[in-house]
Amino acid sequence: MTDPLITLTTDFGEDAPYVAALKGVILCINARARLLDLSHSIPPQDLRHTGFFLKTAIPYFPRAAVHVVVVDPGVGSSRALLYVEVAGHRLLVPDNGCWTPLIPPGAVPAVRVLADPHYWRQPVSSTFHGRDILAPVAGWLSRGVSPDLLGPPVSSWVSLDIPEPDLGADRLRGEVVFVDHYGNLITNIPGEAFLALTGRPVRVTVGTAETTVKVRTYSEAGRGTLVALVSSSGMLEIAVVQGSAAERSGAGMGTPVTVAVLP
Amino acid sequence: MTDPLITLTTDFGEDAPYVAALKGVILCINARARLLDLSHSIPPQDLRHTGFFLKTAIPYFPRAAVHVVVVDPGVGSSRALLYVEVAGHRLLVPDNGCWTPLIPPGAVPAVRVLADPHYWRQPVSSTFHGRDILAPVAGWLSRGVSPDLLGPPVSSWVSLDIPEPDLGADRLRGEVVFVDHYGNLITNIPGEAFLALTGRPVRVTVGTAETTVKVRTYSEAGRGTLVALVSSSGMLEIAVVQGSAAERSGAGMGTPVTVAVLP
Amino acid sequence: MTDPLITLTTDFGEDAPYVAALKGVILCINARARLLDLSHSIPPQDLRHTGFFLKTAIPYFPRAAVHVVVVDPGVGSSRALLYVEVAGHRLLVPDNGCWTPLIPPGAVPAVRVLADPHYWRQPVSSTFHGRDILAPVAGWLSRGVSPDLLGPPVSSWVSLDIPEPDLGADRLRGEVVFVDHYGNLITNIPGEAFLALTGRPVRVTVGTAETTVKVRTYSEAGRGTLVALVSSSGMLEIAVVQGSAAERSGAGMGTPVTVAVLP
Repeated sequence: MTDPLITLTTDFGEDAPYVAALKGVILCINARARLLDLSHSIPPQDLRHTGFFLKTAIPYFPRAAVHVVVVDPGVGSSRALLYVEVAGHRLLVPDNGCWTPLIPPGAVPAVRVLADPHYWRQPVSSTFHGRDILAPVAGWLSRGVSPDLLGPPVSSWVSLDIPEPDLGADRLRGEVVFVDHYGNLITNIPGEAFLALTGRPVRVTVGTAETTVKVRTYSEAGRGTLVALVSSSGMLEIAVVQGSAAERSGAGMGTPVTVAVLP
Repeated sequence: MTDPLITLTTDFGEDAPYVAALKGVILCINARARLLDLSHSIPPQDLRHTGFFLKTAIPYFPRAAVHVVVVDPGVGSSRALLYVEVAGHRLLVPDNGCWTPLIPPGAVPAVRVLADPHYWRQPVSSTFHGRDILAPVAGWLSRGVSPDLLGPPVSSWVSLDIPEPDLGADRLRGEVVFVDHYGNLITNIPGEAFLALTGRPVRVTVGTAETTVKVRTYSEAGRGTLVALVSSSGMLEIAVVQGSAAERSGAGMGTPVTVAVLP
Repeated sequence: MTDPLITLTTDFGEDAPYVAALKGVILCINARARLLDLSHSIPPQDLRHTGFFLKTAIPYFPRAAVHVVVVDPGVGSSRALLYVEVAGHRLLVPDNGCWTPLIPPGAVPAVRVLADPHYWRQPVSSTFHGRDILAPVAGWLSRGVSPDLLGPPVSSWVSLDIPEPDLGADRLRGEVVFVDHYGNLITNIPGEAFLALTGRPVRVTVGTAETTVKVRTYSEAGRGTLVALVSSSGMLEIAVVQGSAAERSGAGMGTPVTVAVLP
């Protein structure tokens, strides 16, 4: 049998001991757990970044994994901590909406509030529930403890406010929802909506930059060209070939993006 | 039986091949070793950061683990390399004091100098003892080699000079000993000493900032408030709710901190 | 039997979900795979950095490992993806030369073009062949699929243009090929060539700095001294003791370096 898999996603940064504490706590409960870092460089307390990250990462994993997410600006408040089953994946998360972008349209996730301190580390600190609640619960889950024992099911939770794009026949309006390490701008405009327009010439505008160059992949245009394409996650993406679209356009999270059919 | 666990803590940075070299060397000696990154972003050659990191991270781990620490400004000099058993945990470290904050008050760690080159990689370079001595020794330890074979016990070692706080009846003086990714300032003033004063109103001063707001957790005060609380590691912490106390106060490692009872 | 080892080296950065996607895809194909991060902070699309990184890291690994490298400025173009056996190590790489520094002088690697989509993830995106081709192929390889099934052997590939040093009797000329996290400057001048001169006094010049101080290891000179030594990878290195030679000299990748015998 394969040793159980637990992934970790946090905004703790790379130089702090908090990630190590999570790992140690889990391994004290289940020495067989296989720990996998997804990222510890989520921008501090950035729930929208976390939401995009999880939506783009979690679906690729085997369903046997347990995903621990500690981006938790409300730690110590009355916000709940949740066990979530969504699209077949299992997560342990603060009830701050960071995980709700994972909910497929029309689907209903199974959600429980972590309520039984038997599965927590004692004493529970006021400022580090990742270490004292989420990590030990992940350890117990990976040892086969039933989610039913963790706490009661709930039918409401905080949802991340996700900006909806405005998809017209001749004009799409959306915004930048993620800027990656290369400076590529990922938007909330679905790739299909963009492709549906592209029988006709279009102009894509973001921040101070615009382009009429549509490509299937970066290498179809020359180095330094600003291009529009469908990203690997299926959304409209604006990129500079071997360069940074974020730098070129001055755009960042939330910057409006327009696709307009040219007259 | 569970495969043996070896953790890695270095100041090598995320883009250099040195971490990979450590991992490869260990796996060539023990293909079953489970490698776990604690951090590779310790600020270069910063022994105090390392000391705080280890003190905050190592105690959470199962005692079966071997912890390799490579923050080694004295590499190639006559400084020794050590095998240490402290509070039940096993470490391989340079003799530069980075590990001594782990020693519980009054406890006596068991320390050996690594002396038998049989367990080293040959030839030993002058500038990378992590790869050529610490990593292979970790590999052999994880295969069950007795620490007795590594080298002779010693009864003295370099100790990290840890600043002691001055804990008066009406006034506590200490300093910042760690700044985390969020800009929270962790001090060397024990949380109990702080709480002992807090029946009365107090003013906490650090750098250019001061606060009289004491909380149990961040969310008890409004966004942007500078607050004083007991950190998850049990020390006085100064934070800005959903912001950076380091930015607000201009404080960093070593900045004086005062807690004074108000008249 | 030990679970199979797959290492990951990318330029995805620490905050993006792309690394997680690679990991998930591999684990869906082989739940037993042990994943090991080498680095995800390779500077974006920097093939020379990647080449130095791989040359310095891969040789330390057990030969059973599969190394996945995703630094791929040509993604989506007609550049091939390769399975490579070089010096006994197995890699999956884009055909952009990033791996060719691993070829020992005079050796002939065994190279195949990945051609059988049976081992790929479908549909294959235009911009993320790491996730859709390299990761799944690594998963299948780790399950024992023969490399012969992946695609046909080829006898030519893109080679990284590696600057050759000019090694004279009294003067060595080369350049900086790597700047590490400490600011140490690693050059393409072999350590032996440097040592061969060092019976006589020499001056080493890089950027705006120069030194006549030759050491075996950093600690042989005082803090802040600019020194020349043989690096742990066997090349001439220029360093500042407990400081940054990159800062001191203004040098970076490609900056010329001269070693001249003094008259």
